[in-house]
This record gives sequence, C-alpha cells and structure tokens, in this order.
Amino acid sequence: MVRLKCIINYDGSQFSGFQIQPNKRTIHGSLEKALLKMHKGEHVRIIASGRTDTGVHAKGQVIHFDSSYDIPVLNWKQALNTLLPDDLYIQEVKVVPDIFHARFDVMEKEYRYYVWNEKEADVFKRNYFYQFPYSLNIEAMQEACRYLVGTHDFTTFSSAKATTKGSKERTIYKASCTERGSEIEFIFRGSGFLYNMVRIIIGVLLDIGQERRKPSDIENLLENKDRRLVGETVPPQGLYLWEVKYRED
Amino acid sequence: MVRLKCIINYDGSQFSGFQIQPNKRTIHGSLEKALLKMHKGEHVRIIASGRTDTGVHAKGQVIHFDSSYDIPVLNWKQALNTLLPDDLYIQEVKVVPDIFHARFDVMEKEYRYYVWNEKEADVFKRNYFYQFPYSLNIEAMQEACRYLVGTHDFTTFSSAKATTKGSKERTIYKASCTERGSEIEFIFRGSGFLYNMVRIIIGVLLDIGQERRKPSDIENLLENKDRRLVGETVPPQGLYLWEVKYRED
Repeated sequence: MVRLKCIINYDGSQFSGFQIQPNKRTIHGSLEKALLKMHKGEHVRIIASGRTDTGVHAKGQVIHFDSSYDIPVLNWKQALNTLLPDDLYIQEVKVVPDIFHARFDVMEKEYRYYVWNEKEADVFKRNYFYQFPYSLNIEAMQEACRYLVGTHDFTTFSSAKATTKGSKERTIYKASCTERGSEIEFIFRGSGFLYNMVRIIIGVLLDIGQERRKPSDIENLLENKDRRLVGETVPPQGLYLWEVKYRED
Repeated sequence: MVRLKCIINYDGSQFSGFQIQPNKRTIHGSLEKALLKMHKGEHVRIIASGRTDTGVHAKGQVIHFDSSYDIPVLNWKQALNTLLPDDLYIQEVKVVPDIFHARFDVMEKEYRYYVWNEKEADVFKRNYFYQFPYSLNIEAMQEACRYLVGTHDFTTFSSAKATTKGSKERTIYKASCTERGSEIEFIFRGSGFLYNMVRIIIGVLLDIGQERRKPSDIENLLENKDRRLVGETVPPQGLYLWEVKYRED
C-alpha cells in the first residue's frame, strides 16, 4: 500500500462543484471513477485539501489516496490523465509518507479572483472572470487589502450557511489587488479560509473600489463580526484555488 | 421593413457549429430562436458571411436580416442579447441599405489560429488553443507564410469534402506567425477562404516548423493542386473568424 499526493487542475465550468453527488458530474466523482477503473472495480477513496463550489476553478488543488496498485510513480500521472475528462488534469503525482493528510496538514492556501472590468460582455471570459462594468478606484482597493493582512476573526466575511463550528480566526499573509489593462487580479494567501470568505471579501473590495465604502471600513467590519453588514457574495467563475502548501513543501 | 447588419461573437465550444440542424444547439438556430421571440412567432431568416464548424470561434462574424419590428437601432443590441445564451453575443447592430448582403458582399476575411506550444495540457486552454507539444522553428514558419501571400489556386489546401464548384483561386493579403511565450498566433487575411483552408495550411506550417518540410515546399504544393499531398486538418478549437470586411467599411 502506498500513499499518493496529487496536484490537480480543473476548469470548474462544467462541474457541479467538487463534492460527490448522485447523478451529478463532480470533480470528486470523476476522480474516484478514474481510480475505480484503474483498480479494476476496487473503490479508492480520495481526500482533498478542501471543497470548491460549482463554477470555481483550481490551478493547484491537492488530493491524497492510498493504493495497492503497484506501478512506477512516473506512470501514475499518465495512467490517470488518460482516464480523466479533459477539463480535469493531474499535474503531479508523488509518493508521500503514510501520515500525510491532504486536508489536516494544510499550512497555507492561495486563492486568486479575476475581475474583467469592462462594460461589454466577452464570450471568451464569461466562465473565467467576473465581468464588472463600473469604474473602480484600484488604490482604494489596495489600501483595503492591507487591513485584511494579519490574524483576524473573519465571521463578517463567512457564509451564514457555514457549518464550521470551531474558531473563525484565520491569518492572512498576503492580500493584493493588481490592475492589468481591463483585468484585475486579487491574490489572497492565508492559513485557511472560511466558506465563501474570498467571494464575500471581493464583494466588499468592489464596494470600496466604487467608493461606496472607505478602505478603513474593513477594520470595523472585522470587529463587528456580523455577516449582515456586508453585501452579496460575488459569482464563482472568477475564483481559482491557486496553491495549497504543506509542511513538507 | 429595415435591413440590419450585426457583428457577433461566439465561443464555439458548446455549439454544434453554425449551420441549423434539427435537435442540435447551433449558432444559426440560437439566433433565429431569439429573433422568433422578438417578432412574436414570425420567422426571421438570417444570412451569415459564411459558416463555421463545430468548435470554431468568432470574434467578428457578420449576419444580416430584415425586420418589420420598429424599435430604435440602439435598442436592438440589448434586446437581442437579453434573449441570447451567454456564449453568443451581439457586439454591434446597424441599419444597412436593402442591397447589403452579408455573404455576397464580403471583401475580405480575417482568420486567426492559436497554438499552445507546451508539453503539459492546460485545462483552461483546451477549448481555445490547439495544444502542440513538439518544438517549432518559428522563423521557418514565418518564411513559409510569405509564400502564401498573393493570388493562388488553393486546391491543395481545401477539404476534399468541399462542395465549392467555382474557382479555387483566392488572394491572401496577409499571412503571419508570431510567438508570444508558449502561445503562437497565426493571422490570415484574404479575399476569401475555401472549406478547411486555414486548418489545412496550419497543419503544413506545423510540419515546416518541425522541419519535416522546407518553407519553399509551399510553392510546389500550391502548383500541384492535390489535397493528398498534405497532412491532417488541425483541430477546430484554435480557429477564430476574426473579422469580415465589406465595401461600406
């Protein structure tokens, strides 16, 4: 028996999210189906660093699973990719110690969110950007990002549907906003993220970009710990799980 | 009755091509369905500059149609876009003289083809680039492009399935190949293009890029007028109908 860690990419547009569901095309389901074929009908359970919602993409999702299938590690990547649909791709497979756990051992995660700041729709960007037609003050959003860095209780910025029972304290190491032509890139690195946290933060940053709020409002919002103080969760297609870091990395 | 000319964009990935077909999702079908709704059940026939195959995209396809629906021209764009699916977008609507014809009046067309020159698959590029894993001599392909410019009989570079009965002579005004990191962009502007012509040319250019043929082979291939002398048609997802020009432009 060997434990394998995989880094996977997916275009979330045609999946009903990560989590396995009956009669739905999900990332978890597609991965286990490929593993089932490889293991001649023996079910192999995978564990991911976390779930992603319908429409959310991944450039560096991480999973682990145990296998009794004895092939050289170099062949795993090709064998799996041959069985997977073309919107789900295994970028790297490596053997890890038996104690490695893709969810419990996460040290750091990076999410990115992409906004297409144009009035005109773009059919080639509809699944990969959030099209936002109003003009934005980039410097105000950059200033707001600085208030997010550090250890805070993010209750205000987590979905009311969240089932997390533990602490809502998380540490953000990096929060940035960069403009490249009509494309705006937001990067967040942190110890972990609550359910919908990035998408709720982006909604507030866009309010600040429109000058409907001040950058320093972030401080008060964090202190008040109340989801009802902030607006809508932005749509999923701009969101990418970019990287997951572990102790061993 | 007014004649309207529209410039339309579409992401071809989820369409079964342009041409209307029973029980298939096509660009023609989606456009006429939207027009049927707008005209309260009255069928409105559209004419396009030409068809595109399944998987082929458009940044500047042109159609025309006649309508008795009396609304200001500025409202047409929004009214139509509201009724269209989000992978099909009307970029511009304008009133044209009754004698304008989207197919017969074409003066010039531009097609582009995008190659992703990497060994590793990219889930976000799979529908928009042709992934080509072998190294390419860009200068050789650029030299080959120069042999394509001018007026030639393109029989060698047209599909054997082509139903065109007339002359296979076409004039190419521009043929270029540009490398940008791992992305290779091919641009072709010409008086017109035969069925599959761009995709067959790209196949030969990639042979030349791999140094399996010389750039000057293009001359002999054109002279010999035989489709069997050249290789496979490259896949559709790298191809974009970029612009259609008319006398009036």
